[in-house]
Parts: sequence; structure tokens; C-alpha cells
Amino acid sequence: MVTMKDVAQRAGVSIATVSFLLNDTKPVTAATRARIEQAMLDLGYRRNMVARALASRRTHIIAMAYPALEHRFGMSTSEFFTSAAEAARKDDYHLVLWPVGNDGVELRELLGQGLVDGVVLMEVQLDDPRIDVLQQAGTPFALIGRTTELEGLSHVDIDFDTTVEDAVRHLREHGHHELVLISGDLDDPRFHDYGPWVRTEEAYRRVVASYDLPIRIIPCSDTTQAGKAAAARVLTEYPEATAILVLNEYAALGVVAGLKHTGHDIPRDFSVLSLLTVPETAAMADPELTMMRTPGPELGQLGTQALLRQLEGDDPLPPQLVPAKLCPGATVAGPRAPRSKGGAGRRGARKARS
Amino acid sequence: MVTMKDVAQRAGVSIATVSFLLNDTKPVTAATRARIEQAMLDLGYRRNMVARALASRRTHIIAMAYPALEHRFGMSTSEFFTSAAEAARKDDYHLVLWPVGNDGVELRELLGQGLVDGVVLMEVQLDDPRIDVLQQAGTPFALIGRTTELEGLSHVDIDFDTTVEDAVRHLREHGHHELVLISGDLDDPRFHDYGPWVRTEEAYRRVVASYDLPIRIIPCSDTTQAGKAAAARVLTEYPEATAILVLNEYAALGVVAGLKHTGHDIPRDFSVLSLLTVPETAAMADPELTMMRTPGPELGQLGTQALLRQLEGDDPLPPQLVPAKLCPGATVAGPRAPRSKGGAGRRGARKARS
Repeated sequence: MVTMKDVAQRAGVSIATVSFLLNDTKPVTAATRARIEQAMLDLGYRRNMVARALASRRTHIIAMAYPALEHRFGMSTSEFFTSAAEAARKDDYHLVLWPVGNDGVELRELLGQGLVDGVVLMEVQLDDPRIDVLQQAGTPFALIGRTTELEGLSHVDIDFDTTVEDAVRHLREHGHHELVLISGDLDDPRFHDYGPWVRTEEAYRRVVASYDLPIRIIPCSDTTQAGKAAAARVLTEYPEATAILVLNEYAALGVVAGLKHTGHDIPRDFSVLSLLTVPETAAMADPELTMMRTPGPELGQLGTQALLRQLEGDDPLPPQLVPAKLCPGATVAGPRAPRSKGGAGRRGARKARS
Repeated sequence: MVTMKDVAQRAGVSIATVSFLLNDTKPVTAATRARIEQAMLDLGYRRNMVARALASRRTHIIAMAYPALEHRFGMSTSEFFTSAAEAARKDDYHLVLWPVGNDGVELRELLGQGLVDGVVLMEVQLDDPRIDVLQQAGTPFALIGRTTELEGLSHVDIDFDTTVEDAVRHLREHGHHELVLISGDLDDPRFHDYGPWVRTEEAYRRVVASYDLPIRIIPCSDTTQAGKAAAARVLTEYPEATAILVLNEYAALGVVAGLKHTGHDIPRDFSVLSLLTVPETAAMADPELTMMRTPGPELGQLGTQALLRQLEGDDPLPPQLVPAKLCPGATVAGPRAPRSKGGAGRRGARKARS
């Protein structure tokens, strides 16, 4: 393999001078430049020349790094991606999707090729190895999501606190005080550090405690089947519950289906509120889900904007937190009447129904 | 901007010679090569030089071209993409996703950067402008899908004929002879030429005619809402129907929901068979859909293999057609008993129920 040293020898210059030229770190005279470039041509020092040429130009391509094997690419993700692609296009950039793992190994390999001007990071973990990889590569990036340590990182995210507050308030306004959260499954090693699940659960604990209500949480992965199983757990473990919040979009469909299968009417027997989903998924449930609508279009656009401002040298975009908005469907109503008269309060109801 | 003509003039050669060198289409002597390369350096003909240098090396990156704005990125697409990415990884390639439009404009822009070794084309149209773009760019490619003119094109696809035959046979075996197809919406200008919809409808016409059954087709786009509307059309236009095949995966969910909403039991009153879907989507329906399972994992893998064989100079992969496999759910049973006794045969039933 031809090395920088070979090029320096043939051009009759120091290795440092070759490096200055290749990395554009110090000006080099035109004559020296020509000598070095000729030496590179003579020696076939092709690949690194390309790398340098690439480094000195702008590709106007940005990548969205998405862990497609760990996270399903569902309806909501699709919205983030297409809105980010549209935002990029408006500013004369192309967005491509890199299905790279959460550990950063593949990301490093792709960054090494120097093919993109910057990266938008999706599905951020609280302590995300991909950020080290991006910083080491010197590639500009923006997060859709948040790590624990955010100092100096350009980011936009869902406002989980406001989202959960608004959701719980909606159920309270309908008279519910027996709530259950069907959350993410933080015991799954792939997700124990997954921002949206951790933050939603934290927000829920805080909000419910502020109403002086018991904290009831059932872990659940994001599939319809898991949602059905979680619905069964609600019936056996928290039969007094009258309202169920479901974090994951496909799980919410399973919760509705599971409750109906066991002879319960929605919303007469249970109110169900989907915490982060999109209209198309909500419409798949019967009745259509009341939901907090994931701000995918807004965040895809803002995340791209946060990156492009860096690339264009504009003022940085301040961090943006966007709450999911309440969209009433047909799965929330007032709580059912208690089965046994006079008897069961919050705790007693469990016995009465089981 | 420096053109190829400028380079040719400065080097004292013809434009054709410059082109031979840049595109590697004809051998050029070492002396001529050196003159042209020096001229390019002198003139700062950088961008195209990079393109050429890139063309001469292998990035080991391939792109899946996916029209993300025209086609929703649903559960099924996700399977094609992740299995293609896994297949690429096994052979030491990276797969990236390019969300480029069906007209080929953005594809041409991205190809011009010379960043990938080849392209896997998804959501193929019968007459697909992207194929011209790929051929003009000289980029190796493989289709997941088929154009009308397939001569010399490396392709894999769903075997729509076998899929539809198996689906109709399954319904026939349950005793149905009053069938309706809820198809794609070929009147939508974005989809009038969309291979899977055209081929499925053609196959259906042929298969149903072979059974001497009437051809009943309702166009429908791929949303739950459209599926509900199509279910309503079945009830008014073809009340004699006892079994419904649904081409699109999200429409199938809407058909089940729509029929249930109007007081019909599935499968007692109507059998429903989802023609191309995945288990997770089928599980969202209640009852769970009987389906022909889209061979996304197989085709993502085969499409990538078809491309990689070209890139590695291996024997070409022969065209592969993979049928969707029948997966029984809970939405197909025997036909309901006719409402009016003795009266209605196949044709008369409509009147009897309307």
C-alpha cells in the first residue's frame, strides 16, 4: 500500500507538508501542491486523495442513523424520517437512512468513508455510544432525543413531562382515579437505557404521585401480542383500574383487543389512552384510540434544522421540547360504576371483581 | 464551471478521450492519461475527478432506493429493508436507504455523487424511470419487483399468480363462490403503474375467470379508513359476497373493523383474507387475520444477493419469484347460510339481501 511517506519522498517534501495538504490544516504553495498531487497520481495514492477531496468539499448529504434491527420501523418512525427528508430537501440536502446498530460500530465504519456532511441521531439512549463515535470522527450531528449528559449537544425531543401531565389530566377530568400505565419493558437489555421509555415512566411516577394516586406500572414491549398479555395482567393484578395509559403504539392496539376479547367494552368498562402514536395507528383500533399524537413531523423537521444550522454556520437552534397533543378518539369516557354497592373503595374493588 | 471540454483543450486531446478515461470505457495510454490528469489538476476539475476516483474504487456501500413519500414505510417494507441490510452485512457491505422519488430525479442526483457500488430498487413500476437513470449512470442494480420489459434486468419479486391462486383456492375449499377483491387504487396517478397492484389484479381476474366466477373488484388505497369505506361498498354493491380478499395490509384492518361496526360477525357473516401482509399487522385485527404472508425477509435477502453477485463478479442470480404463503388466522370459515330459503342462487342473492 502506498503511504503518505511514499508520497512525501517522491514529491521531495516532508510528511508534515503532505499532511497539511491532505487535511487542509495549513496553506501549501501552489507549486508544492502540484508536486504532491503529481506524486500521488504517479503512485496511485487514490483512496486517500479521494478522502481528502471529499473532506474539502460538501456532499450535501446527511444521514439519519436509525437502529433498524433494535427498533421496529413503524408508522411513527416513518413520520420522523419523511419529515426530516423533506426538511433536508428544502435546504438542498439529501437525507439518507443508515440502519446502524446502537453500539456505534457500523456508524464508525460508515463515517470513516466521509460520505455525509452530518448525522441526525434517532432512538437515543441515555448514555449513547454513538455520540462518542460521532465526536471522535468530528462529524456534525444533532439528536432527536436526549442523553443524560447534554452539555453542548444540539437536540430536540418529545416533551414527555407535558405529554404525561396532559394525558393524566384528561383522564382525571373524566373522573378517573384508578390508573395503570402499560409502559415500555425496561428489563429488556436493548431498551433499559432507552430515553423515551425511561422519561415517560419517570414523568408518570411524578405526575401520579402529585395527584396522590398509587403508582401502577406494567412493563410491556411494543407488539400487539404483548399488549394483549398486559391487558390480561391489568385484569388480574389491578382489577380496580378504570383507565389505562399505554406507552407503545402497537401495544395499545393489543390492549384494546385483549380487553374486548375478555368481554369488556371500551370505553364503558375501561378507558384506554395511547400515549405516543399516530392517527393511522389509532384508527386501527376499534373503537378508534384516544391518543397523545407523537410530534414526529415537527421533530423530524426540527432535528434536521438543528443539524443544517451547524453545517451552514448559522446560529445554533436552541433545544426544542415538543409535547404530544391530545387527540380525542372513542376510548375514553367516565369510569364504570363500581360492581358492588357501598363496598369497594380503591383497594376493595380488586376483590370485588376478581 | 470547468467542463470536460476545457480539460480536453488544455490536455490537447479530444473530448471523447477524456470521457474514455473518466468513464473507464476504453483504454488510454499512460502518457495521455498523465496529460489529462494534469489538465484536470491545473483546472481544478475536482468534483468529477472525485467521481471518477470513486468510480474506480469500491465503497462497499449499497443503497436501497425507496420512494418514501409515495409509499408508506409500513411493517412489510420494514421487513424487506432489515433483511436486505442483514444480507449486505453478511457479505461485508453496508446498506443505506435513499428516500428518492419515483421519477428518478433525486436518484440521479445521489448517483452523481458516486457514493455507492450499487442500488436495490424497491416499489417498482411497470415502466420505471429510475431504471433509465441507473443505466445511464452505469450503476449496477437489482430490482425487488418487475418492470414490463425485463430483458437483462436482475430481479426478484413476489409470485403474484401463485399467491392469488392459493388464496382463492383456500376460500373455495371453505365453500365460497361469492368473492370480492378489495384491490389497490389504480386510478391514483401515483400508483396506476405500480407492479404489485397491477399484477395482483390481473392474477385475480384470471384465477376467478378460471373458476367461472364473476369478477368483482373494488379499488382501495392502503389505509384503515379506506378499508372501512370499501367494506361499506361491499355491503351495498355486492351483498351476496361471502368472502373478501384484501390486497393492502392496512386496508384489510379497516375492512374487518368496518364490517364489525355495521353489525357483522367475522368469519360467521364474511370471511376476510389479507393478500399481502405480515404477522404483526394480521395480529392487529380482531379476530386475527387469515393471510398470505408477504415474503419480505426472503426477497430483501435475494434482492441484495442479486446485486452483490454483480458487484463481486459472480454468476448472476436467476430471477426469483417467491409466493406469499398462506397463514391461517381466524377470519376464514364457511359461507353464511343464505337469508331467504330456496330462492337465491349466486345471482339472486344480491336482491335477497339488499
